[in-house]
Amino acid sequence: MTSPRPHDLRISGGVVVSTFTGEHFAADVLVRGDTVSGVLPPGTPAVAAEEVDATGHLVVPGFVDAHMHVESSFLTPRAFADATLARGTTTVLADPHEIVNVAGAEAMRWMIEAGAGTEQTQLWGVPSCVPAVEGLEGAGASLGAADIARMLDWPGVVALGEVMDYRAVVGGDARMAEVVAAARARSAILDGHCPNLSGADLSAYLATGVDSDHTKNRTEVLVEKARLGMLMMLQEKCLLPEVVRALLALPMLPPFCLVTDDLAADHIVSSGHLDHIGRVAVRAGLPPEAVLRALTWNPAQRLRLPDRGVVTPGKRADLVLLRGELADFDPALVIAGGRVVARDGVTPGEEDGAEACPPAADGLTGTVHLEPQRPEDFTWRTTLPDGVHTFRAMRVNPRDTYTEEAAVDLPVRDGKVDWEGRTVLVRVRNRYGEPGTTFAPLLGRDLTEGAVATTYAHDSHNLVTIGTSALSMANAAQAVVNDGGGVAVVHGRTVVARLPLPVGGVMSAEPAPEVAARSRQVREALAAWGWDHLNPFMSVSTLTLAVSPALKITDRSLVDVVRREPVTATV
Amino acid sequence: MTSPRPHDLRISGGVVVSTFTGEHFAADVLVRGDTVSGVLPPGTPAVAAEEVDATGHLVVPGFVDAHMHVESSFLTPRAFADATLARGTTTVLADPHEIVNVAGAEAMRWMIEAGAGTEQTQLWGVPSCVPAVEGLEGAGASLGAADIARMLDWPGVVALGEVMDYRAVVGGDARMAEVVAAARARSAILDGHCPNLSGADLSAYLATGVDSDHTKNRTEVLVEKARLGMLMMLQEKCLLPEVVRALLALPMLPPFCLVTDDLAADHIVSSGHLDHIGRVAVRAGLPPEAVLRALTWNPAQRLRLPDRGVVTPGKRADLVLLRGELADFDPALVIAGGRVVARDGVTPGEEDGAEACPPAADGLTGTVHLEPQRPEDFTWRTTLPDGVHTFRAMRVNPRDTYTEEAAVDLPVRDGKVDWEGRTVLVRVRNRYGEPGTTFAPLLGRDLTEGAVATTYAHDSHNLVTIGTSALSMANAAQAVVNDGGGVAVVHGRTVVARLPLPVGGVMSAEPAPEVAARSRQVREALAAWGWDHLNPFMSVSTLTLAVSPALKITDRSLVDVVRREPVTATV
Repeated sequence: MTSPRPHDLRISGGVVVSTFTGEHFAADVLVRGDTVSGVLPPGTPAVAAEEVDATGHLVVPGFVDAHMHVESSFLTPRAFADATLARGTTTVLADPHEIVNVAGAEAMRWMIEAGAGTEQTQLWGVPSCVPAVEGLEGAGASLGAADIARMLDWPGVVALGEVMDYRAVVGGDARMAEVVAAARARSAILDGHCPNLSGADLSAYLATGVDSDHTKNRTEVLVEKARLGMLMMLQEKCLLPEVVRALLALPMLPPFCLVTDDLAADHIVSSGHLDHIGRVAVRAGLPPEAVLRALTWNPAQRLRLPDRGVVTPGKRADLVLLRGELADFDPALVIAGGRVVARDGVTPGEEDGAEACPPAADGLTGTVHLEPQRPEDFTWRTTLPDGVHTFRAMRVNPRDTYTEEAAVDLPVRDGKVDWEGRTVLVRVRNRYGEPGTTFAPLLGRDLTEGAVATTYAHDSHNLVTIGTSALSMANAAQAVVNDGGGVAVVHGRTVVARLPLPVGGVMSAEPAPEVAARSRQVREALAAWGWDHLNPFMSVSTLTLAVSPALKITDRSLVDVVRREPVTATV
Repeated sequence: MTSPRPHDLRISGGVVVSTFTGEHFAADVLVRGDTVSGVLPPGTPAVAAEEVDATGHLVVPGFVDAHMHVESSFLTPRAFADATLARGTTTVLADPHEIVNVAGAEAMRWMIEAGAGTEQTQLWGVPSCVPAVEGLEGAGASLGAADIARMLDWPGVVALGEVMDYRAVVGGDARMAEVVAAARARSAILDGHCPNLSGADLSAYLATGVDSDHTKNRTEVLVEKARLGMLMMLQEKCLLPEVVRALLALPMLPPFCLVTDDLAADHIVSSGHLDHIGRVAVRAGLPPEAVLRALTWNPAQRLRLPDRGVVTPGKRADLVLLRGELADFDPALVIAGGRVVARDGVTPGEEDGAEACPPAADGLTGTVHLEPQRPEDFTWRTTLPDGVHTFRAMRVNPRDTYTEEAAVDLPVRDGKVDWEGRTVLVRVRNRYGEPGTTFAPLLGRDLTEGAVATTYAHDSHNLVTIGTSALSMANAAQAVVNDGGGVAVVHGRTVVARLPLPVGGVMSAEPAPEVAARSRQVREALAAWGWDHLNPFMSVSTLTLAVSPALKITDRSLVDVVRREPVTATV
């Protein structure tokens, strides 16, 4: 017999999909408080205060994101929760390394508090690499092993965020070893980042205890990592048919998770969040039931949350009602902690915008410490003698965030590189009161006159400006400075799109729909300018990410990522 | 590059089996301290203090047993560790409900201490049902919710032991609800036991948060449970070809574990432990790689031990070198915590017997409080009038521990049931100073004259005697009383085999080889007598287990297990 106590909610007429067996079975789901209190044959009598009609819907567990960064959405944690709960994401492990690079430990505390009280379970990882690569860039903050150890003990913190300075780890760097040891001593989850690391280097990296990877790997490296029990976290760019074929060809499908890593607000609003990744995974060839497990049970296990990831009595009532086929991953209604939090992609929080915008803490606004941006600031000065020199250039591609080292011949006259009309230029300018400024040519884009500037630039979030002329670059950069941080796109010499990010220069204070509209404008303006990329925000903002191969640029220099060292401007 | 620090151990020339992908790959495995420090292509240069030649061997993670009882082996925890480490079992979650039913909370503390210092990771669950069914039997101890809550906070304790009074749980019993709530509040693992529970009752049971089951279920119930995300723990009797076919026919193979539950010392020594279960699983039709995952990674996840279950750098160096094919699960050498602990099935601890026998604590010996056992004690007295009456009888089978209710006509004369020569008799006698004594006929065995007596009798461990004559029964019972507890078999009227179990009446103080020899003698004596069963110890010792369907017997009465109530001697 079932307990005679009444239930709070009865979800009737739906078809539950088992994340254990993959079976679809008709069942009524009962909820009491924040917990599923029954899964019963359809029509079993039960008293419930509220009823949800699930006829024609599939009932699945809420999605769990084991690797992501809230700031990539340009949203504050509460606005992020509203936007992604509507897409079925009920649990996330967030690594706030963007805002912590800008404003340190207290920024993380603000993030945790800002997200508390939402219906989304937000767990946190302490950024392990602040700055991303020590000594090669000027950041707004720096965390030592003692800072990280202290933060690991904060409530809500369960992980060491992605250990992305993998070259330092493999090389036996003392600071990284201390950081990882502190996390290990606390039995924290150890999150990894090691694109294409393989063989003896991979062995050395794993030996520290870091046991996941969410980066894009060559297929054979991905299989090598899975073979060694490294938990593969696949984001959109990893979900290629050849990768899926390789996974399905193995004697057993390894446990794996699907993750978002970095998705901007407009992407979330228009295409979706983990639901989108689910669809991408199906299109790449994964069976929908395996995709569902990788969105629910597997990441819940990874996050050591035995209370979720399957629709069953006794587990947390994080539930998603899906329209259509499982493969569509199309959330019609989302329940988190037993409460209906979204219908048809909209949360109540988003409707009354006020709730979504908690005030930013002191120290999180006014973080762009820069003089007015004038065209002469884009004069590329050099100590080279007059004549033509071969400069090291970054070649970008339209697919991912890898950059290749290339070379461009440019004339030097009177201590200035004559670049206008000859190449696209990137300038990285320190925004934390240091003088650091680096210039480099950029290849791989066919652009009309214009520029883009952003303070959202992994991981130090200095001001990055890319353009075809000093004037367009100055105009873009000045718009960003005026906004207290953000992204601006200039066509010709006119600012045509701007996304103000006044919270640390990386997040908006607005709710998701407004941020989505503005980020869409930026995305479209970039495309119209000729910036051709699947993920234009990441493509721009990772030019500075000195742990992402192969040639990157910081406020201090160009960086050879594989050798983990600065390189000169000329070849 | 690998770290220049030297390693302690190099296991070279072997073939590692991935518990993630199922691949077999040649690799050298390096160990530093208690951790794997490298998994490298064969022959990669590395400095190590010691070398193990793994040529011709497979290298797999140590086996993890997510559900078992040390006492079923008749061994104390240290002797158990020696015997089972040799078989590759490096981690166990033990529920000491046998000894705790005899001697209470302090017995559990002794168990934890007795096992500490071995190389086996012994985690502990607090027995949830002491006595197994409240009110229906007289046990040596009783644990309330407050006792259990206190014990859950002891170091080494991670789980609530199998919640086997599932009828009480489903019925909303207040004590069981309090016990489960206390465990849930501490985020303990909640271990289940609910044979064939299904539908609304299963839903109610799961709603408490208990989310595993290791009992034998009808195939369709097993699938129902798996579908609902209940972790299926399959022991030998569950591993039938039809069960395996049903699992393999599902859209996805659900996560599952292989467990031992109850294996006696002689079984461990002659047939094996989890290695044996692995072979049984393969014979039943499971792919060897899926079996390996169910012996390692899956149970490690269940026990929330992210540091084991896969051979990879950074994980615990619990490793088993297997001879022959994976399907043979034949351990040649076992490493636990980085130390070689067994070769060819023998541990150093077993060779010098002394270490294996820590002294039993006060209160754990002299636990059989009984008068001398005389033939007249097996006189079955009744208040029934003279004449033939139909008595309720227990029908046993040769396969499992289910009993069926049957009926036997027996004459009554002068207040005594005239049973000798007409039926086999069971007597259960309280051994904790209470008068409780129950008799019942037993069907399903074709026995010559003789008897068996045991104080190892789930879960209260009263003195159970089964026999064909009062004299043979008295002789068996007296032998057990003389030994301070144990098992004795009588052929004719002569004691032919005895297994003294002076530690609480359920464990020997001897090391595994001695206990194995004696338990083999008992097993053979039972078979020679006509006691035909796959697992004769369990077949005898579960006649009293009032949570195991259908008709059982305690010192107080016959029990209808499904209705969870006492029933009369006559129909």
